[in-house]
Amino acid sequence: MKFAPRKFSIIFLLVWSYSALGQAENIAEKLGYPKDAKMLIIHADDLGMSNSENRASIEGLEMGPVNSASIMVPCPWFPEIASYAKTHQHVDFGLHLTLNSEWKNYKWGPVSAKDSVATLVNSQGYFFDNVPEVVQKGDPDHVEIELRNQVLKAKKEGIDITHLDAHMGAAMGSVDFLAAYIKVGREFNLPVLLDDAIPAMADTKIQEMLGPKDIVMDRTMSANPTNFANGMDVFYTSILNELEPGLNCLLIHLAYDDVEMRAITVDHPDWGAAWRQADFDFFNSKEAKKLVEDNNIVLVTWKMLRDKIVRAD
Amino acid sequence: MKFAPRKFSIIFLLVWSYSALGQAENIAEKLGYPKDAKMLIIHADDLGMSNSENRASIEGLEMGPVNSASIMVPCPWFPEIASYAKTHQHVDFGLHLTLNSEWKNYKWGPVSAKDSVATLVNSQGYFFDNVPEVVQKGDPDHVEIELRNQVLKAKKEGIDITHLDAHMGAAMGSVDFLAAYIKVGREFNLPVLLDDAIPAMADTKIQEMLGPKDIVMDRTMSANPTNFANGMDVFYTSILNELEPGLNCLLIHLAYDDVEMRAITVDHPDWGAAWRQADFDFFNSKEAKKLVEDNNIVLVTWKMLRDKIVRAD
Repeated sequence: MKFAPRKFSIIFLLVWSYSALGQAENIAEKLGYPKDAKMLIIHADDLGMSNSENRASIEGLEMGPVNSASIMVPCPWFPEIASYAKTHQHVDFGLHLTLNSEWKNYKWGPVSAKDSVATLVNSQGYFFDNVPEVVQKGDPDHVEIELRNQVLKAKKEGIDITHLDAHMGAAMGSVDFLAAYIKVGREFNLPVLLDDAIPAMADTKIQEMLGPKDIVMDRTMSANPTNFANGMDVFYTSILNELEPGLNCLLIHLAYDDVEMRAITVDHPDWGAAWRQADFDFFNSKEAKKLVEDNNIVLVTWKMLRDKIVRAD
Repeated sequence: MKFAPRKFSIIFLLVWSYSALGQAENIAEKLGYPKDAKMLIIHADDLGMSNSENRASIEGLEMGPVNSASIMVPCPWFPEIASYAKTHQHVDFGLHLTLNSEWKNYKWGPVSAKDSVATLVNSQGYFFDNVPEVVQKGDPDHVEIELRNQVLKAKKEGIDITHLDAHMGAAMGSVDFLAAYIKVGREFNLPVLLDDAIPAMADTKIQEMLGPKDIVMDRTMSANPTNFANGMDVFYTSILNELEPGLNCLLIHLAYDDVEMRAITVDHPDWGAAWRQADFDFFNSKEAKKLVEDNNIVLVTWKMLRDKIVRAD
């Protein structure tokens, strides 16, 4: 079945919702919440990347309010987090689909046979380190092959995948990449993280792909280097205090400021070891839980979105 | 040029050495030492495997008496040690040619395109975890391809490779594997670690490959779980006190007993984090240096063997 263009769907739904047929349910209502609920996914990225990231993310997920995370299948510590995910099926794990290897001294490459995704691989056999190079050199067919193989590998490991998203946005870096990413999500009946702020989203090709079961965030938020410089607690406190109604996703990165993480992120303080420790410290504090509660924030998971919307009849 | 059979060479040399032509030089003499010198390479294995292994091995090499090491090209932290090797050309670095991925939660696979070495790869795309499975399933042609690609990758990174050896002996695991390993050494004019204690060495095919420029250890030594249980200092002290004349190689594993190393070696105390810390502690002690000195041990490097024997006119 071909999906109707999304912009068209929205207009159609608006017309329809004020018609005699009654009002269409928005995402909040589909999940069983009031239609103006302030929904939030507090989502840890980069699991599988290092042992430090795995340990801190597991601790964050077990203590809350962090309630969802995504795993990088091509990374060295993938088997560790896959083993945890397999034995903790109630924890919300998606895949952080990965097309680049950004650190200086610690590398990974594709899950696929290298020559089947040759345009994604540098002369050392790793992914390119930066997203612009991936987007410039990568053949969208190779992107599709690699994304699919990452999903297949995770499934084979017994992970109950709740969603897909894109490490550093590489898999959303062009219209054709984004189309491949959405297509792979469809194949496995999985929601993929989408947001109208992604430049390629505006393209007709993408809009024509989208339908009412696609999950498009109202807001996707993440700390930037200025936020880090001003203090993560200031940033996250204001995010939670000022959260607007709708579906919101806050992307964070949990790891310890330890020797391994400092070595991986050497020469790169942004998204570095101290940054990730600051994320961990904030979201493992009583204050974070209290802010969620005081602001009547409804924590929703990708599993809810998958099962009640994407996989609903 | 085809090399004369080695056993034949030895007999020939013995006859020749007592002839009117004078006595042939043994390895010690070729390196400029008395012929009964107690030569020793104190060799750190597994570099590139983890950040902890890299840091501890570099510290060991810089402090002495550890004087040689080998690098695992397929491992996640290879770029870190390659970068060090490139800028520290005086340090003796070979390659620890790798065909297996033995730890539970932390994995690597071939440097080659996976489908070009399909018999070396498990269903998850990694090397097999145990050597018997590599030997049973691995096609020797695939072994040759992978070993060559590991050398080519290290050369491309600017490492001045002094020798080749074999991680957990996998590349010496059968006559055909050993033949591929020796062949790749020849191609790059590099010494490969050989020892008559390797079972496949006795095979005619191998003996026919060997010539007077091949470096066969008189003794290759390494701690085993019983040695570890009885205390590494006891074991290494006796090794150094009882060292016999000839060419000796002592294989050790330097890492810190830290969080990363404990996570990698989880459920496997043998060759685990504490084991590697014990190796580090012994060889970074004043006692180790004093034992080398007191026993008139001559520390030789693979670079000396490469340049004065394998690459000599």
